Amino acid sequence: MHDLPAPIRPQIADMPGSRIRQVSEGAFHRPGLVPLWFGESDRATPQFICDAASRAMREGHTFYTPNRGIPELRQTIATYLTGLGRRAIDVERVNVTASGVSAIMMIMEAIVDPGDNVVLVTPVWPNCSDAVEAMGGEARRVALVPTDAGWTLDLDRLFAAVDARTRGILVNTPGNPTGWMARGEDLRAILDFCRAKRIWLIADEVYERLVYDRAVSPSPLDVAGPDDPVISINSFSKAWCMTGWRLGWMIAPPALGDTLGKINEFNMSGATTFVQHGGIAAIREGEPFVAEIVAQYGRARDMVIQRLRSLPRVRMPMPEAAFYAFFQVDGIHDSLALARRIVNEAGVGLAPGIAFGPEGEGWLRLCFAASLPKLGDALDRLAKQLA
Amino acid sequence: MHDLPAPIRPQIADMPGSRIRQVSEGAFHRPGLVPLWFGESDRATPQFICDAASRAMREGHTFYTPNRGIPELRQTIATYLTGLGRRAIDVERVNVTASGVSAIMMIMEAIVDPGDNVVLVTPVWPNCSDAVEAMGGEARRVALVPTDAGWTLDLDRLFAAVDARTRGILVNTPGNPTGWMARGEDLRAILDFCRAKRIWLIADEVYERLVYDRAVSPSPLDVAGPDDPVISINSFSKAWCMTGWRLGWMIAPPALGDTLGKINEFNMSGATTFVQHGGIAAIREGEPFVAEIVAQYGRARDMVIQRLRSLPRVRMPMPEAAFYAFFQVDGIHDSLALARRIVNEAGVGLAPGIAFGPEGEGWLRLCFAASLPKLGDALDRLAKQLA
Repeated sequence: MHDLPAPIRPQIADMPGSRIRQVSEGAFHRPGLVPLWFGESDRATPQFICDAASRAMREGHTFYTPNRGIPELRQTIATYLTGLGRRAIDVERVNVTASGVSAIMMIMEAIVDPGDNVVLVTPVWPNCSDAVEAMGGEARRVALVPTDAGWTLDLDRLFAAVDARTRGILVNTPGNPTGWMARGEDLRAILDFCRAKRIWLIADEVYERLVYDRAVSPSPLDVAGPDDPVISINSFSKAWCMTGWRLGWMIAPPALGDTLGKINEFNMSGATTFVQHGGIAAIREGEPFVAEIVAQYGRARDMVIQRLRSLPRVRMPMPEAAFYAFFQVDGIHDSLALARRIVNEAGVGLAPGIAFGPEGEGWLRLCFAASLPKLGDALDRLAKQLA
Repeated sequence: MHDLPAPIRPQIADMPGSRIRQVSEGAFHRPGLVPLWFGESDRATPQFICDAASRAMREGHTFYTPNRGIPELRQTIATYLTGLGRRAIDVERVNVTASGVSAIMMIMEAIVDPGDNVVLVTPVWPNCSDAVEAMGGEARRVALVPTDAGWTLDLDRLFAAVDARTRGILVNTPGNPTGWMARGEDLRAILDFCRAKRIWLIADEVYERLVYDRAVSPSPLDVAGPDDPVISINSFSKAWCMTGWRLGWMIAPPALGDTLGKINEFNMSGATTFVQHGGIAAIREGEPFVAEIVAQYGRARDMVIQRLRSLPRVRMPMPEAAFYAFFQVDGIHDSLALARRIVNEAGVGLAPGIAFGPEGEGWLRLCFAASLPKLGDALDRLAKQLA
């Protein structure tokens, strides 16, 4: 960092930064571009959620809130999660956060000392490992195994990666970029292991509603009690199309609540007040919308898989959940270069697999949370490009 | 932390948490309470700002933004700061953040390795030291000296606190809780010192518009060039009554921009989209509002100072800026207990001085960003209580 007038930490200086943005920057305003690189729907937030936030603003909900969130939202989240058919969630376990990623960073601040490690199931979206490394920790990667049927997790390898300096296991399920969904019995085994080792099981479950053969994905919350070492992270971004709102939550043991509030104080001092009111409306009135987008994404998934798999150079495990097609292209060893070539030559914006770790090299991620015509157009172009 | 199912870091476990909230919790809904404990106005956000955010939402501005903020807001901030009569600020130096506190935390992530230290001018609001300590650093405190005329900074003591592990000097000017305002020549001397030592000068300037004898407080940005080791933190919270919005910014060297964007990615992934549109309206249309609240707070300051100073046990340096009366009560050695007694017996919510560091013990902070009748009522009660 020779241009800087004073030093910054090597950990931070050495981070590569988003490889997705390295593809998108400069190409964003390309005419005719079909951007499928980011993890967000092309649909704006439903109007009833916007209306609730606007109303809250007008009514003067513009002051600081408690660090753990306004009581009404915390209760609404507790009721919602309990209604998903898992074990009941008490409001004392609910911590509102200004996004899922903010929750992950705050957890790493809580548990990771320099030299500690957190074991991650990979490939995984890069912010998880960046947050560990920002705290001076090691992000220890255990790769899922791709098969034509889907992705599989080797529990023996996962547990073998844990050592005396491991402070937690982070499982992003359903997973970004893979669409992998942890099985209930695997989550139970991981929970038992974490209990015995006294390490945290951190579950990033922001895609839990974007599932195609059931109502909600398996979760550690199916089996964990309130005092188990489980922190479940969630977000309004994906199920309610609220990426730009920056609102999420954590379910954590009640004994951790004061600590999480304290950490939130010097990170964010709470989530945006009227955004929290929008979150209440999203949960209370949003089920028809969630059903509608899941149906849409399900149709998109079917089409995208069928068409990608028909390409001779493409190999793709079935994404069981979430809204990504993560596929391998035969003969490719530089996914960043390929993604750049595709955006420049075909006008389709994809995320390079290397963005999700070394085990993603040679792969590409396509977000299918877009209209069928738009996806069809992108697939036509991709088919030519990858021919 | 015997109740936790897995460990958390000692640094985090040992943090005391907000002493202000230790006073306010449980007492918040006391009938007849006059709450002057938090650093926020009792006025809601002006309607024109709410309208701009609502309009942006309706227009579909609900997607992710660039980590460093939407270009229009960055340009608006650059133009606004340049218009304050300091050196011109180029848009490449502007980084939008989801609050001032988030900016401080991200800076500490960028510069503080375990064993490093940051020198703080104190007493100061607690999140500054918490952020340093969360990164494993030492918050090294240099106390302002109270005199009847005001607070004074001893530059020799400040510079003597810097050693080989110092990564920055943090100056909150105008200061919370003191109302101290750094003099231009002091800031110039600190900048020269930081340049020579290659350490960062971090200026938290969120109260820069709440000044009573000029248009804006002295700033390192008066004299620093773009490539100087200066990071200036600001926020929409105080000047535009937007505490609940969570929106702020940092002015930093252009060479640090990519790094700050990268750090923002795994902390927040940008500020709330339509909130950023509210920020544009606040700056573009907000000058009459800023003038109005500064006039109001100026009248409040005069009354509060006159009345507090008339109490025999009270000693109070003149707050030159910001919206706090920070005063010492003769014979008091437990400000937390006193603040609790005052809320319980007099129904007035104040912040205990200990919340701002050991050098604040024996002091209390009153936020005078409230209507004159409300302040008059609180002062009547305080006069009786402290008689």
